[in-house]
Amino acid sequence: MKRIAIVGAGCSGLAAIKSSLDEGFEPVCFEREDDIGGLWRYSHTPKVGSGGVYKTCVINTSKEMMSFSDFPPPQEFPMFMPHKFVLKYLRMYAESFGLIKYINFKTSVENIIPASDYSLSGQWRVRYISGGGESKTEVFDGVLVCIGHHTYPHIPEFEGLETFTGKYIHSHSYKENVEFTGKRVLVVGIGNSAVDITVDLSHVTAQTYISTRRGAWVISRMGFFGLPADAIANCRFLFKLPTSLLQWCVEKMANFRFDHEGYGLRPMHRALQAHPTINDELPYRIMTGAVKIRPDIHHIMKDKVYFTDGTFLEIDAIIFATGFDYKLSFVPESVTRIQNNRTELYKYMFPPHLNHPTFAVIGLVQSIGSVMPISEMQCRWFMKIMKAECELPSEEVMLEDIQAKQETMAKTYVKSQRHTLQCFWVDYMDELANQIGVKPDLWKLFCEDPALVIRCIFGPCVPAQYRLMGPGSWNGARATIKGSVQRCLFPTRTKLLPKNATGKENNSLYSINIQHHLHSYFVILFVVFIFFCTSFVGDHFGL
Amino acid sequence: MKRIAIVGAGCSGLAAIKSSLDEGFEPVCFEREDDIGGLWRYSHTPKVGSGGVYKTCVINTSKEMMSFSDFPPPQEFPMFMPHKFVLKYLRMYAESFGLIKYINFKTSVENIIPASDYSLSGQWRVRYISGGGESKTEVFDGVLVCIGHHTYPHIPEFEGLETFTGKYIHSHSYKENVEFTGKRVLVVGIGNSAVDITVDLSHVTAQTYISTRRGAWVISRMGFFGLPADAIANCRFLFKLPTSLLQWCVEKMANFRFDHEGYGLRPMHRALQAHPTINDELPYRIMTGAVKIRPDIHHIMKDKVYFTDGTFLEIDAIIFATGFDYKLSFVPESVTRIQNNRTELYKYMFPPHLNHPTFAVIGLVQSIGSVMPISEMQCRWFMKIMKAECELPSEEVMLEDIQAKQETMAKTYVKSQRHTLQCFWVDYMDELANQIGVKPDLWKLFCEDPALVIRCIFGPCVPAQYRLMGPGSWNGARATIKGSVQRCLFPTRTKLLPKNATGKENNSLYSINIQHHLHSYFVILFVVFIFFCTSFVGDHFGL
Repeated sequence: MKRIAIVGAGCSGLAAIKSSLDEGFEPVCFEREDDIGGLWRYSHTPKVGSGGVYKTCVINTSKEMMSFSDFPPPQEFPMFMPHKFVLKYLRMYAESFGLIKYINFKTSVENIIPASDYSLSGQWRVRYISGGGESKTEVFDGVLVCIGHHTYPHIPEFEGLETFTGKYIHSHSYKENVEFTGKRVLVVGIGNSAVDITVDLSHVTAQTYISTRRGAWVISRMGFFGLPADAIANCRFLFKLPTSLLQWCVEKMANFRFDHEGYGLRPMHRALQAHPTINDELPYRIMTGAVKIRPDIHHIMKDKVYFTDGTFLEIDAIIFATGFDYKLSFVPESVTRIQNNRTELYKYMFPPHLNHPTFAVIGLVQSIGSVMPISEMQCRWFMKIMKAECELPSEEVMLEDIQAKQETMAKTYVKSQRHTLQCFWVDYMDELANQIGVKPDLWKLFCEDPALVIRCIFGPCVPAQYRLMGPGSWNGARATIKGSVQRCLFPTRTKLLPKNATGKENNSLYSINIQHHLHSYFVILFVVFIFFCTSFVGDHFGL
Repeated sequence: MKRIAIVGAGCSGLAAIKSSLDEGFEPVCFEREDDIGGLWRYSHTPKVGSGGVYKTCVINTSKEMMSFSDFPPPQEFPMFMPHKFVLKYLRMYAESFGLIKYINFKTSVENIIPASDYSLSGQWRVRYISGGGESKTEVFDGVLVCIGHHTYPHIPEFEGLETFTGKYIHSHSYKENVEFTGKRVLVVGIGNSAVDITVDLSHVTAQTYISTRRGAWVISRMGFFGLPADAIANCRFLFKLPTSLLQWCVEKMANFRFDHEGYGLRPMHRALQAHPTINDELPYRIMTGAVKIRPDIHHIMKDKVYFTDGTFLEIDAIIFATGFDYKLSFVPESVTRIQNNRTELYKYMFPPHLNHPTFAVIGLVQSIGSVMPISEMQCRWFMKIMKAECELPSEEVMLEDIQAKQETMAKTYVKSQRHTLQCFWVDYMDELANQIGVKPDLWKLFCEDPALVIRCIFGPCVPAQYRLMGPGSWNGARATIKGSVQRCLFPTRTKLLPKNATGKENNSLYSINIQHHLHSYFVILFVVFIFFCTSFVGDHFGL
């Protein structure tokens, strides 16, 4: 029985244990802390080298889209889960599949190197310090590194930061807003953490500012009719459209919600050229003046921050939400190395130059979508390779693929330390699924269940789609796909009207009424027509 | 020189002083507290008999729509002002027109009765206790009661409330969320205070619940493209449309934002049949599970609250956001009386049976729009009547008008103690403006300035429209009307793109681009088409 070493018991680590078991391997998981959950286990004291969430963190992918493919979250869980629900979900997953007993808690991995007979066996020697404090060494047939990439805070250099008289921290250390009550706080950055922290701060600070070099397209979690926006967007059909059309759509919708130029957020780049910023509350906080947008920092002097537009502000605290450095500290550079956050890994997983495909990094991906199903898919693929049911191509082919990906990334995204691991969720999932043979064959399915195929093409691309057929298929997959919108809306339907009040069934959760929806467009067209009459005539003819 | 007694120095009182001065009267204002601002002056300790805001309160009308007609707020003020900005604005107004010196602070009015020669003179005898504590009596030519109507908390009877082991308060006493940290809190009511407090609480409580009998249509402050929704909605053209069409529009738009049935909020009544609930954050808080909607309370027993659907919850604190009782404690019932919150006042101002039109109540109106411009208009009319430039009709006509209004209200609104002072903003303003002759004559204006008329008809009905012509006209009115959208958006445009980046002028604030907007609808139509393909086909054909 082959033994797989798994480093970390966060969401990726749990998926790795489960996948090992599914394929008949023996997983041995090493977790430095005394509990599972990784960054989703809230801790009031931040630790460098461990990811962590802040107190009010809510995951920005909806519950059906962020889940493991064969384990949909309970229907009563919120549509977008606060971190404690995510942890609860991970615990349920671990308990349901009996994963806990494979985890060695309070055990940190010191070093992973090829075993002495690596060239023959492909085995790895793992040195770790156990809970008791003793250093041990064991040999494993495979290694999965599941340590996440929100662990090493990155603060860029700013002129005069050392003279700053206030307090400054990295977003990694931000836990709650209490200590910033009544202060003037500047948040640097416009990513998801930056904006979430800004909104959280803005409830208590005297004034919260965001400094952003680029600006951002800000998308909300809530889409039309209160449905999760990511479930509407992460759709097979949409991702078959030309990127330029998608960009145009995202920009128009973002501006329809609030004019990004009018709110000081309009970026120079097109939508999808940077990792999107997801926030529901920012525009409201800007509108009420609680948050103000400032340009890039020029320099800092004592209690003042000077911006590139020549203005300055007196600031009591700065929070750098400027991202993370990716490091694999316990792996020698000869195995794989990360330079300027740029990895050289085939499909973001395998170092291409190794002789055996027995070592992989899991979850070191930035997708526009949830990382949990991605980690799970990566693990499934790894196990198939370990079982020799799949194989990696030659080193040359892998290097070409890495090169091609980097070139695409350079063309698609704004150059930044942040955009080194980008992928589109559906594309990447399909790419891996193809390797294992679990990408749903929609033509074949169409004969059996055309409605399901319509859902698969035009509906949310829920992870259960990768359990419909092929190895590891799950007979709950169809029901999971069909019930996904209903399960998302279940927790909010807490007060129902009597049946005769609206003349329709109320026990069918969220029964979609096409007229109800079409009407909405006429209304919007009509109201904005009136708005045009004044603004357009007034502003364009200079009357 | 006639002397006018003004009770209260809140927003209505200030407008009353200013109007008195404009017409050459001598205002004498009595203010119980030591400062102006009424409920907009935040105080940490609630007082029964005084209105008050909570710490995070933000006015729910946009700055151009809530302002006095000849005093637009500074362009750098937020689009929707937190309470401290509203107070700042009121201070600026008071200082700019030199109103402070007419206010007797720390002076409470004890009693207002007709003077001994009232039948001849129409004068009133006002007894008050001055700052020094001495009781004084003075005679005035006119009286304006400007005490607001958010002063006497109303808590309906609930079975078993006396057995409740937790803490319960009225929303009037709610100041901040800190003391509710980690608790299970139930907010009763679905009005603006209820929902604002719920959202505020939901940031710190273990769980926040709303109990609502009726549900509500929840509208956001932010409208299309991030423009203030009230500025889009309070439009002359829209209010000329049939109410049923307006209701349909409001419902469709509200559901387009989030499905009210899916989120447990759908009311039995149509939109505009109840005072609308305005909140930007509630749907997001429901979506993440921080707020849950429950039906009406059936009874309370110790730490448990039982609901009409048979469920119950353990609750640590209840906040009754169940509205206010309207009282005029210092006026004898022979002058005017309020029963079950129902007044008998001509145009919500004049007791119809008095022989002289020298007594009026200001701001005792619930409009779908800001009360400040209404109070100002009421004062302007009152002064014209005092000057005998306008006159009131006969008692019979006034009683008929009151009767007719009450009948309309009974037909239009859901029966409730809350819906006794309702009016549509534009209609009511026009009604009063007609009396004074300041309703803009759009046909006449069209020849001079057609663009202005288009703005007046299709654009936001800003209060400055009532300063365009007639007595009290102001030569800043046109510029105020034309610049209103720009001034609203000024504070948010804090970071501009270089001119060549977007190819359009950036110094023209919010230059409206018609294409930019039309595109948005195609996008929405397109994306929701995809959504239909799954949901409609799936759910309606039972596939």
